[in-house]
Amino acid sequence: MKIGGSVITDKTTELTPRTQDIDRLADETQRANVKDLIIVHGGGSFGHPAAQRSAVKEGLKDQNRIMGFAETHHFMTVLNGLVMDSLITHEIPAVSITPSSCMVTEDGRIKDFEQTPMKMLLNMGFTPVLFGDAVPDVKLGFTVLSGDQITSTLATKLDAEHIIVGVDVDGLFECDPKTRPTAKMFSHLSMSDLGDLHAFAGRSTACDVTGGMLGKMKELLPALERGIRITIVNAAKPGRIYNALKGESVEGTVIEKE
Amino acid sequence: MKIGGSVITDKTTELTPRTQDIDRLADETQRANVKDLIIVHGGGSFGHPAAQRSAVKEGLKDQNRIMGFAETHHFMTVLNGLVMDSLITHEIPAVSITPSSCMVTEDGRIKDFEQTPMKMLLNMGFTPVLFGDAVPDVKLGFTVLSGDQITSTLATKLDAEHIIVGVDVDGLFECDPKTRPTAKMFSHLSMSDLGDLHAFAGRSTACDVTGGMLGKMKELLPALERGIRITIVNAAKPGRIYNALKGESVEGTVIEKE
Repeated sequence: MKIGGSVITDKTTELTPRTQDIDRLADETQRANVKDLIIVHGGGSFGHPAAQRSAVKEGLKDQNRIMGFAETHHFMTVLNGLVMDSLITHEIPAVSITPSSCMVTEDGRIKDFEQTPMKMLLNMGFTPVLFGDAVPDVKLGFTVLSGDQITSTLATKLDAEHIIVGVDVDGLFECDPKTRPTAKMFSHLSMSDLGDLHAFAGRSTACDVTGGMLGKMKELLPALERGIRITIVNAAKPGRIYNALKGESVEGTVIEKE
Repeated sequence: MKIGGSVITDKTTELTPRTQDIDRLADETQRANVKDLIIVHGGGSFGHPAAQRSAVKEGLKDQNRIMGFAETHHFMTVLNGLVMDSLITHEIPAVSITPSSCMVTEDGRIKDFEQTPMKMLLNMGFTPVLFGDAVPDVKLGFTVLSGDQITSTLATKLDAEHIIVGVDVDGLFECDPKTRPTAKMFSHLSMSDLGDLHAFAGRSTACDVTGGMLGKMKELLPALERGIRITIVNAAKPGRIYNALKGESVEGTVIEKE
């Protein structure tokens, strides 16, 4: 399960968590009681502003960026700490796995990932919790690794059954529903539908398809190709994450290989 | 540099940091401005009470201990977060490395340690910060890994020059100075002196040698054997960590191979 940074933080104000939503999502997760669950969350107003100020994503271009990396990573661990507080208060046996402690990227793509501790914890019944992070990179020195890439990599490596993507819109739309309220939402898509949508997005300037959601989908394609089902739901609306975790029918977009 | 949990937390009250000492130590570290520094801290009243309540050290003996592990790890990341806050506020490019994300033990001893991300960060000029943690263990399921064992392992693997151990007493004493105020402190010891002290401690019941400090020393023996100098100082007393980091003469105990 990936939870977007826009759900658990107020993206308009730096370092501002949405603690009520964090608690509600912990409650929904606890009630759904899913086995073999891994949670990944985004950075929202904890990770992005610091990362952007120092252009951490571009790597170690000058020494001034060193503190930017340290800050970005630290702020992400602070947000993760708030998520962990809530999960543990809800009696979920959650254990944080820090990406920058066990992953190295090459030009922004995960190159090495020491999975042993996480797999051992998962097998014992723990719920590993990862997050978008600033990580060392063999080409760039360091970079920013998105929660989406982590989610896709984990799902693929661990042969996941289902990826739930919790965002702050109801699903995948033909146009960004925030700027075009009449936009149509897709309830079900195949991988080839997604390809058509991509081609359409490439041609169209009239319509900012899905407000960046196609980028997310592109990141999740390798998982989709392996037959892993993806459900996109609005995690800001109570009950939808619960329904998705239970495998129940829920307002949102389901994407499958065929 | 290892900083004991008794320095940065109030061990008499659960989850109570000594924030003034944390800030002072960050200031001393920033002023000393040492290159190639790794910091390891203990758990004090964050890690130990939760670990003891669920006997996390003994491993996964029953399912009730699962939450104990999750809590112990979480509380340690909270303490680490406070340390990181202070280091980063002092403009130290500190990056936390989470032991349970990259280390696996076997019967309580470090078996595998994915060092790549930490080494890459160290080489770029960052200051990695590790801590005693609850970690997965191939025999026990999980256990508690002490900051002392992490310190010794890192110093040995990375061929450190110097280990500074910051505790809440002035150095290594013939008897615990907290219960016997007239106890004599050693200012300089060789490895063979330490062996004699061990033999003495084994025979003597009259004197709780060093209040557990010999256990620490035993953990650091492999590093000492490789010729790494160890300086034990009182990190609760202002300026001593600064002096030790600068390599200046300081009240404390120096232990060397010969």
